[in-house]
Amino acid sequence: MAQVSSFPELAMHGLKDIYSAEQQALAAYPEMIQAATSDDLKLAFSEHMEQTKAQIERLEQIFQNMNETPGGVECLAAKGLIAEAKEHIKEIESGPLLDAALIGAAQKVEHYEIASYGTARTFAEQMGDDIAAQLLEATLEEEELTDERLSDLAIMNINPDAADEI
Amino acid sequence: MAQVSSFPELAMHGLKDIYSAEQQALAAYPEMIQAATSDDLKLAFSEHMEQTKAQIERLEQIFQNMNETPGGVECLAAKGLIAEAKEHIKEIESGPLLDAALIGAAQKVEHYEIASYGTARTFAEQMGDDIAAQLLEATLEEEELTDERLSDLAIMNINPDAADEI
Repeated sequence: MAQVSSFPELAMHGLKDIYSAEQQALAAYPEMIQAATSDDLKLAFSEHMEQTKAQIERLEQIFQNMNETPGGVECLAAKGLIAEAKEHIKEIESGPLLDAALIGAAQKVEHYEIASYGTARTFAEQMGDDIAAQLLEATLEEEELTDERLSDLAIMNINPDAADEI
Repeated sequence: MAQVSSFPELAMHGLKDIYSAEQQALAAYPEMIQAATSDDLKLAFSEHMEQTKAQIERLEQIFQNMNETPGGVECLAAKGLIAEAKEHIKEIESGPLLDAALIGAAQKVEHYEIASYGTARTFAEQMGDDIAAQLLEATLEEEELTDERLSDLAIMNINPDAADEI
């Protein structure tokens, strides 16, 4: 991270970090969709991949409104979290057990995004940037709903199947 | 990660991962407490450091009940998240701006833990291990409260001071 000496600079660094995280997540989804066995999980991942594209557009709108360009920051945390998901794909055979592992990995990415968007939204509110705050809040709510959907899927379907697997 | 071929193995891997994350967080707290300027933030970090010790003991109790030992897994995500906090300490001068950055970094760690404990608790419930599920749920609730406390502190005190800083 470059030297940060003002609140708007800190906020901008956070936005670039989450932009990088979203781009990495978007690139990883096709492999996760392919690796999943459950149709419900494939659908949840596919729908969130489409949502991620719209979330990236919201971020681009914020950058444009601020006369900034995204890029220049690589989110290392997202890199590590996505590497964990890919490791599961390598180490676990396809089936409910891999599905359960993929849900856990995806929820870690969701929670990284929840924390990041929460901070970014609060920073935007502090700076009186209502448009950015609303865009970030909209994405935050989508991430929270995705996390809940994955929890429900794990509890109701995937974990029971994974625990029964021989 | 070693080959994982059963649900209990996947659950055990998750517990070892979160044990590593907690140990890393515990080791990082003294530096974060020292770097913080706000007395309220120093207190929040200090109290959560003490809480973390009790959370580690809960995990050790779970390992003992399962005749397992922790260790052997290094949580790379926690390593990256904590490195981010330390980077802030290097790149930002002490004061409200650094405090705001540290809260954001700490909330990312909290959310990593929320996702991890959420999955671990759900796995324990699936395996019918009520004692482990209750211990993990107790920690999960503490992590969620810590996250909320940090949000409140940011919104009410730290961010306004950081935004006013010249």
